[in-house]
Amino acid sequence: MRKMIQKIVMIGAGNLATQLSLALHEHGIEILQVYSRTAESAKELAGKLDCPFTTSVRKIEKNADLYVFAVSDRALQEILDKWSVPIGNSVHTAGSIPADIFENYAENYGVFYPLQTFSKERKVDFSDIPVCLESDNFKLRTDLIELAGQISKSVHLINSEQRKQLHLAAVFTCNFTNHMYSIGQKLLAEKNVDYELLKPLILETAQKALQLDPVSAQTGPAVRFDEEIMNSHEKALKDSPVFQKLYRFVSESIYKMHKGK
Amino acid sequence: MRKMIQKIVMIGAGNLATQLSLALHEHGIEILQVYSRTAESAKELAGKLDCPFTTSVRKIEKNADLYVFAVSDRALQEILDKWSVPIGNSVHTAGSIPADIFENYAENYGVFYPLQTFSKERKVDFSDIPVCLESDNFKLRTDLIELAGQISKSVHLINSEQRKQLHLAAVFTCNFTNHMYSIGQKLLAEKNVDYELLKPLILETAQKALQLDPVSAQTGPAVRFDEEIMNSHEKALKDSPVFQKLYRFVSESIYKMHKGK
Repeated sequence: MRKMIQKIVMIGAGNLATQLSLALHEHGIEILQVYSRTAESAKELAGKLDCPFTTSVRKIEKNADLYVFAVSDRALQEILDKWSVPIGNSVHTAGSIPADIFENYAENYGVFYPLQTFSKERKVDFSDIPVCLESDNFKLRTDLIELAGQISKSVHLINSEQRKQLHLAAVFTCNFTNHMYSIGQKLLAEKNVDYELLKPLILETAQKALQLDPVSAQTGPAVRFDEEIMNSHEKALKDSPVFQKLYRFVSESIYKMHKGK
Repeated sequence: MRKMIQKIVMIGAGNLATQLSLALHEHGIEILQVYSRTAESAKELAGKLDCPFTTSVRKIEKNADLYVFAVSDRALQEILDKWSVPIGNSVHTAGSIPADIFENYAENYGVFYPLQTFSKERKVDFSDIPVCLESDNFKLRTDLIELAGQISKSVHLINSEQRKQLHLAAVFTCNFTNHMYSIGQKLLAEKNVDYELLKPLILETAQKALQLDPVSAQTGPAVRFDEEIMNSHEKALKDSPVFQKLYRFVSESIYKMHKGK
């Protein structure tokens, strides 16, 4: 079957742009060109994809089937403002930006939001990553579903409000969780205990949340309101007032959630 | 080689007692008897181990090589107070209780602290679980190392201060992390988005922290101080004041950690 979207220009060369364009490239989608404001990252990604790159918005190829804007929220508006001609089919990959940011710039537009944490140095398997799509245009929406289905088994039509909530939930689930790991690591370093010891716990906690409902799987001093332990932990954090405050707050939040408040 | 600790009495029948005694049993250590205050849980575990149980401290077998106290911190002292004769070799499994709680009760004592989150319904592979040991008694310490080495590849001598810090780090890394998952789930439910969508992110965030340093792997609006997104997220949480406060606090903590404060 002929692919509806065959040639893509990738706007951006960061973590997500890198992983997404590599996944598309591996599935036979041609990345026509990479644009990035910085020559170094544009060149690096273009090298991996064996395609041309540019750092000038005016030199972006005009004949792509799709323009994927995988840039920071701030950069997105800046790049759009530099565009002199109407853009073809366009999507962005942002969690919290409405699709209609493209309204005065592109005729057909939408959102292609892969819900995952990306690093340049860590290759991810796109096939499990939920891709959340949105477009008011029937033809583009259909084409995006086909495109996403080539790289992922998990394709979802999600409206802007739901996507924004997904982004918020992802901040708790990924960014805040990672900060908890960081605090754990820092606490152990203070007493010369190897961070390695925490790793089986990190993995099991995550795996448990894939199998059991996390609310009912909650363990620890806060959920059983073990004041003695909690007081002793807060005391142990007296030299780290930020962590101490955080300890109290998260414990209170756990307790309240389980009291059904 | 003759095992130095061959016969164990398990005091407790909760999540940890269950998983630990099953692992010991599988490695040829005899669980002589299970004690629990509630007949139901004692019977359930004894059934799995095919051994007798008791709910009376006075009826606990006297000839075990080791008494493992895998009970809540509060229950530990209560059970010790009921003991009428000196106890043989004794260990507890608690993160934040010093070894010398046994001082007036047992001649030789120590700590056998497996650093993991346990549920009765989820079987864990003990071989990867760090077992943190402590004992002032050379003979018992050696025997505990041998015992732990039979069920785990990760055996560590850890003093009480380090163990307490490990417990604190584990609260952040496991209990607080699980609460972040719970919040993510609740936020999605509000907008009728399936919790399934978060699962690949939960797993990847954990796996990333096993490979990369979590501090340098931190992503999200807080670490790049993206005020626009953070304000929009806080606004979105206006009907959940506890989560809103938590959002602000964790974001501040992330930002401060990365500013090196």
